[in-house]
Amino acid sequence: MTDSPRRRIPEATLSRLPIYLRILGELSDEGTTQLSSDQMAALAGVNAAKVRKDLSYLGTYGTRGVGYDVAFLTYQIQRELGLTHEWPIVVVGAGNLGQALSGYGGFTSRGYPVVAMFDSDLSKVDTVVGGVRVRAIDDLPAVVQSMNVSIGVLATPGAAAQEAADLMVRAGITSILNFAPVVIATPRAVRVRKVDLASELQILSYYEDRRQSANPSADPARTASA
Amino acid sequence: MTDSPRRRIPEATLSRLPIYLRILGELSDEGTTQLSSDQMAALAGVNAAKVRKDLSYLGTYGTRGVGYDVAFLTYQIQRELGLTHEWPIVVVGAGNLGQALSGYGGFTSRGYPVVAMFDSDLSKVDTVVGGVRVRAIDDLPAVVQSMNVSIGVLATPGAAAQEAADLMVRAGITSILNFAPVVIATPRAVRVRKVDLASELQILSYYEDRRQSANPSADPARTASA
Repeated sequence: MTDSPRRRIPEATLSRLPIYLRILGELSDEGTTQLSSDQMAALAGVNAAKVRKDLSYLGTYGTRGVGYDVAFLTYQIQRELGLTHEWPIVVVGAGNLGQALSGYGGFTSRGYPVVAMFDSDLSKVDTVVGGVRVRAIDDLPAVVQSMNVSIGVLATPGAAAQEAADLMVRAGITSILNFAPVVIATPRAVRVRKVDLASELQILSYYEDRRQSANPSADPARTASA
Repeated sequence: MTDSPRRRIPEATLSRLPIYLRILGELSDEGTTQLSSDQMAALAGVNAAKVRKDLSYLGTYGTRGVGYDVAFLTYQIQRELGLTHEWPIVVVGAGNLGQALSGYGGFTSRGYPVVAMFDSDLSKVDTVVGGVRVRAIDDLPAVVQSMNVSIGVLATPGAAAQEAADLMVRAGITSILNFAPVVIATPRAVRVRKVDLASELQILSYYEDRRQSANPSADPARTASA
């Protein structure tokens, strides 16, 4: 907890902080200790003025001619994102996607250990996936309470997603990361982020389309049908 | 193909087009035929001036007092993103994540059918996952050629990712969606987008942290340790 009230940072800045944090982690792994706003801008794909503006919300301005200290900036972003302690998460839905997410090293290493998985299919209950035991969905409220879980990952098929979300909310989950390919309705106080795995493909195909339009002879089959 | 040269749209606008497209799809499913820039702004979490500016790159300006036509705007964004034909994709890595991605309805329904999966583990070869047969990695070049594949999804463990990426590039893949939790090196002409499944959790924990700072009594265990 901080003593002074925290400034609310704009949503667009907030959405870039995880990107900066990932870049800082990669630089740190390579032994880099300083970086300029220009370097960060190039790595993050935004302009340098925006980088400086974003980081100014953290109360950090870099040093002229030196730039930012990688370790301190990492700490500042982690603090802003609430990453100074771990956030235990639960995964609801133990199908392929739930299993993949439970085994995804990127969650635990970033401070989001998966403490339990849940499924309504009793044949999956008590199997162990990526070191995490699958539990019956009826146990969700007890686990959320005892392990102090705020964040749940929704990884059911689309048809089961709304019912699963309702159970998560009733159990006391207040933030849901929705991987199911449907929109879910929740009370206003519950925050939902939807992950759309196809969005990134749409950005890739935009560039592919330009590439192939610019050089149609490279790909006669596709441009003929376009 | 268009007859006139295409305008390059800014990266930030490009990254919002899939979001607009998803919103339009949801509105269309609900029977909505028109929407204003204010409505789009509220649904997408950006301001209305930005929505209007973004959509102006498509050559579309809406109608004062009426807004945008959902169907026509959908078509314009799809055209801009190169979605007027299907983009066959391959998935490299047939573990849980690869299996989840192959079975993810959101790819095929958005115009990205998974035409093949590949794995170096011969025990997985010839199994069928989500209707897609797993093939030996040696078959990758032949499939890329014969099925005219430009885009590959990398879903191997981190340790295998660079070698898999090298094979994809040699096979003729020119765009890679990287789900592996590592950075891969590729030739400049190959476009890579990295999907970081933990980023969205970081945004959720930011809001949870604020919520709990504002109302510490709601969560004594966590605030005591923060």
